[in-house]
Amino acid sequence: MMLVDGQPQDAVSALDRGLLYGDGLFETIRFVGAVAPLWSRHMQRLTNSCERLRLPVPDPALLWREAQAARGDMAHAVLRITLTRGVGARGYAMPAAPQATRIVAAFPMPALDAAAFRDGVRLQLCETRLGEQPRLAGIKHLNRLEQVLARAEWNDPAIAEGLLCDMHGNAISATAANLFAVIDGVPVTPALERCGVAGVLRAELLEALPRVEVRDLPLQECLGAGELFLSSSVRGILPVQAAGTKMFAPGPVARAMQAHWRGLGFPMEQA
Amino acid sequence: MMLVDGQPQDAVSALDRGLLYGDGLFETIRFVGAVAPLWSRHMQRLTNSCERLRLPVPDPALLWREAQAARGDMAHAVLRITLTRGVGARGYAMPAAPQATRIVAAFPMPALDAAAFRDGVRLQLCETRLGEQPRLAGIKHLNRLEQVLARAEWNDPAIAEGLLCDMHGNAISATAANLFAVIDGVPVTPALERCGVAGVLRAELLEALPRVEVRDLPLQECLGAGELFLSSSVRGILPVQAAGTKMFAPGPVARAMQAHWRGLGFPMEQA
Repeated sequence: MMLVDGQPQDAVSALDRGLLYGDGLFETIRFVGAVAPLWSRHMQRLTNSCERLRLPVPDPALLWREAQAARGDMAHAVLRITLTRGVGARGYAMPAAPQATRIVAAFPMPALDAAAFRDGVRLQLCETRLGEQPRLAGIKHLNRLEQVLARAEWNDPAIAEGLLCDMHGNAISATAANLFAVIDGVPVTPALERCGVAGVLRAELLEALPRVEVRDLPLQECLGAGELFLSSSVRGILPVQAAGTKMFAPGPVARAMQAHWRGLGFPMEQA
Repeated sequence: MMLVDGQPQDAVSALDRGLLYGDGLFETIRFVGAVAPLWSRHMQRLTNSCERLRLPVPDPALLWREAQAARGDMAHAVLRITLTRGVGARGYAMPAAPQATRIVAAFPMPALDAAAFRDGVRLQLCETRLGEQPRLAGIKHLNRLEQVLARAEWNDPAIAEGLLCDMHGNAISATAANLFAVIDGVPVTPALERCGVAGVLRAELLEALPRVEVRDLPLQECLGAGELFLSSSVRGILPVQAAGTKMFAPGPVARAMQAHWRGLGFPMEQA
């Protein structure tokens, strides 16, 4: 079920700036029944990102009501909230009084593979690199062609994700998940000041981990890590089994973060 | 008037990848009556960009028929053709059999200011810099948040455009036009291998100019140019009068290219 500006509807104006310019942002939120354990973090990022993009900040209480309406009676839903700068005059200039478009859509939670949580996933080392743009870095905005091109680099269904670097060869993230490496026993996650999306589960882990470093992570150092795992607010904590030809085993930090994920109220599909 | 996949319609699915990810591209084409002097160059870029983004290439004859239908009896129209990767499964992976969405929309040509052609326009020196992404450089794709942010840096109506640099301080373009500088008598236009949009009128000028260099153009060198002008397939050739506090006078190369523009069949609004 989908609501556009509060109305059950599945279309938007072909003149919406979200379509014309990718002028907007989104959140993808996992629900367990009527509960979204990371809701407040999603709202925090949404608010912060709206301010950075000069979009009107929607009322979280309104979004919550619309989320529940869109979810209906789905037991396991993924909710996508999309906010755009709406319809305006032609051209890049922001409308003086922006009328944002608000799309709240619920989808059935896709089936997850228990083996992925237990044994880990395989990553493609992507040749597509992320461009650096500090003004957009961290924001889950609608300009996602880089991720589309990176994801198109493989179609082997045994490969779950891709590992993306920036132009300097620093590991940044997967196409749709954040990245953690455990190096000499210390969890490290790439700094996202120049590119990448600052994931909501990543923010959660940065508080949950007793010790963690946020810094540049050259690919070679990343591939030399003792353990590697991905964080996604929809898929949870996924140990990495292989990145290119380099093999890894699920390690204690990934297992601890999986336990933390379960503690948040997400299902037990994770081994 | 607007056609979506050939049907008179003004809405698209809220699940279209053009909206979800900016997964698509566009062309903005100026018509003089029923004629679009740069049509074949637009089709050339469209085809080339579709191939780079792995989008199905539409039939130019079909686009032409739809363009005429959308234009109706408008004497001066700007046509926007938008192609997206359509509706697919959730996630960045391209659908195995992509069903593109094709939007053909005509708008009345906006009034142009004759003084801009005669005396030139003022440029803001934008602080927003263009990120470098060789896989997308040159393409007029739907990921245009950088341009939106750059255009939001000023709202003085006396400033017509912004001058954008890359992260290394090379001048690249305006927010919605290409840039030419005449340095020691030689026209130079920035190389667009790492960022920027390869404009259709720019391509035309590269053939029309007896001598021209395509290379990196550091901002300081650009501001020291003897003349500076913009090229836009909608607005034509605009001499630059000022870039920040640096003043310029319209020069002979800009005047020659304005004459070339008129020779293509565009109106005489240019002095």
